[in-house]
Amino acid sequence: MPIQLAGKAAERGNSPAGDHCPVDRAMQLIGSRSTMLLMREAYYGTTRFDAFAARVGMTEAVTAKRLRELVAAGLLERRPYQEPGQRTRHEYALTERGLDLMPALFALGQWGRKHLPHDGTPMLTHDACGAPVRVELRCTEGHRPRPEELVITS
Amino acid sequence: MPIQLAGKAAERGNSPAGDHCPVDRAMQLIGSRSTMLLMREAYYGTTRFDAFAARVGMTEAVTAKRLRELVAAGLLERRPYQEPGQRTRHEYALTERGLDLMPALFALGQWGRKHLPHDGTPMLTHDACGAPVRVELRCTEGHRPRPEELVITS
Repeated sequence: MPIQLAGKAAERGNSPAGDHCPVDRAMQLIGSRSTMLLMREAYYGTTRFDAFAARVGMTEAVTAKRLRELVAAGLLERRPYQEPGQRTRHEYALTERGLDLMPALFALGQWGRKHLPHDGTPMLTHDACGAPVRVELRCTEGHRPRPEELVITS
Repeated sequence: MPIQLAGKAAERGNSPAGDHCPVDRAMQLIGSRSTMLLMREAYYGTTRFDAFAARVGMTEAVTAKRLRELVAAGLLERRPYQEPGQRTRHEYALTERGLDLMPALFALGQWGRKHLPHDGTPMLTHDACGAPVRVELRCTEGHRPRPEELVITS
């Protein structure tokens, strides 16, 4: 059932992977609940501070702190906008780096939907064909490896 | 660029999604760095307490607490084992619920590999064909929807 380890990964003994592990690096930077919920809102089209705070249900202080972190980490971009007769404000737009996190967010959601069921959980579908959308592991040859067919090499 | 919202999701206004959101439910239960690193080790075949603590580089107290949480959440199972002449100890085995988190973990790793590059980052490949393995969004008809082709319906 476990994944196969090859190369240095197989000889690691009990030493911690530390910064070699990209999961660890990602979690250190963006692995908080509030970060994930703000990214969910960004994917849903939210751009303005007040809407982010309200839709994730966080205080303005926490929202401001987390949005600053997401801008610093390059997942969102802060852009000025101005409505007639109003002062200049800022909105938050997705970057490519932010969009690239989408599979991780939906994979967490897929796990939550299956293992922590709750009434009213939204569905994710493909608009062209209406079929449900899932997150899956595929190799570039198009196969879907079982866990024991995966190899980690370092 | 944003995802399409349909049904109640489109009419949500500024009310928080709360427990309707499976990403939120998942992050509340398992969304910490130490949890993800312990699950990484479980996928790599680690079963024993000392090896978990050493390989994730955490204190015994934190490791014990997090393993207890993962057992309570059903991602790992605690099983007795006994070596000749030793007292009974316990090891931690992956459950189906734990295995199901694998795409989320590798999706975070995929993001970290691309956006936070670091020497010595391990590669994930398919042993049968040697091709790199990626996490991707696919509908059950086999299409790979672009973000703007995704629909969230609640």
